[in-house]
Amino acid sequence: MQEFPEVAVLRLGHRPGRDERMTTHVGLTARALGADRAVFPDNAGQSHETVADITDRFGGPFDVELTASPKALIRNWDGRIVHLTMYGERVQDVEGEIRSAHHDDEDPLLVVVGAEKVSFDVYEAADWNVGVTNQPHSEVAGLAVFLDRLFEGRELDREWVDADRRVIPMETGKRVESADADDDGE
Amino acid sequence: MQEFPEVAVLRLGHRPGRDERMTTHVGLTARALGADRAVFPDNAGQSHETVADITDRFGGPFDVELTASPKALIRNWDGRIVHLTMYGERVQDVEGEIRSAHHDDEDPLLVVVGAEKVSFDVYEAADWNVGVTNQPHSEVAGLAVFLDRLFEGRELDREWVDADRRVIPMETGKRVESADADDDGE
Repeated sequence: MQEFPEVAVLRLGHRPGRDERMTTHVGLTARALGADRAVFPDNAGQSHETVADITDRFGGPFDVELTASPKALIRNWDGRIVHLTMYGERVQDVEGEIRSAHHDDEDPLLVVVGAEKVSFDVYEAADWNVGVTNQPHSEVAGLAVFLDRLFEGRELDREWVDADRRVIPMETGKRVESADADDDGE
Repeated sequence: MQEFPEVAVLRLGHRPGRDERMTTHVGLTARALGADRAVFPDNAGQSHETVADITDRFGGPFDVELTASPKALIRNWDGRIVHLTMYGERVQDVEGEIRSAHHDDEDPLLVVVGAEKVSFDVYEAADWNVGVTNQPHSEVAGLAVFLDRLFEGRELDREWVDADRRVIPMETGKRVESADADDDGE
């Protein structure tokens, strides 16, 4: 989000066909919950297209990219790295430290979200291995809770620019408005 | 969770094949983040099996069930109903009211998570239609953030009984211990 140093979400591993929706949901969750950028392996072209399309329609700023070398992104990252894993330290124990590195020291943050088995060098490269519970559940759920806690809910109030449409919160029913008039950004 | 009135999560709609993983992740997220029960449509047998198997291995209490009539569960629910939808009221605006109904008035809570298009009667049956952002992202992410906020993080400290194994939080690496000796329930 604009007021914070960059938060990028790296999806590590992607099995075409099988992982399409999960990778797409990782990207859409990153966008909706305050990350600035999602990076997918380059065999995840379909997920990339979906996330880019949603950003076109519902606004940004948000970038989605493909990379031929996710490991190089980790190796060369100039900032701190969080790896979300059910084997990691408890999020409630380390979130304060991570928030402080990100908000106060202004370190950009790379959040790594694995698909299948993650190799040991990723555990070693991470500044924090973090478990959103130490239970098996969903990388999408883990990412969502982590981002909501990192930003302490401020991501829910972020504004969107360059959107074609905007959903108006409603008690009952659906309301979508065209957003071309007043919130088109630069 | 034991100290609170029941929270059940209903997955509404399931397309076999296409939705298998999403429905499984809804169930596993419900379990990991403090719900007491997940209910799937009866064509989601494979997801049911996966969630039951994880509960056997990693502990409970947690129930997963199939129903032939999700709409009847909604109709006959004796408590309050939350429907998670990107068209709903902002979670940050209504979570206090929902928490108070659940914690103070001790109303059991049914959390409805749709797959595809949800029919209008569900919007009407819900006491609250709630958006975890009004952006398109992931029903799994929405459920995760909703539960974490409902329980104000207390679900992260819950204990598991009747588990075969337990993951020990680690700074680096993986450690799984057998849990048969000391945490087997009663």
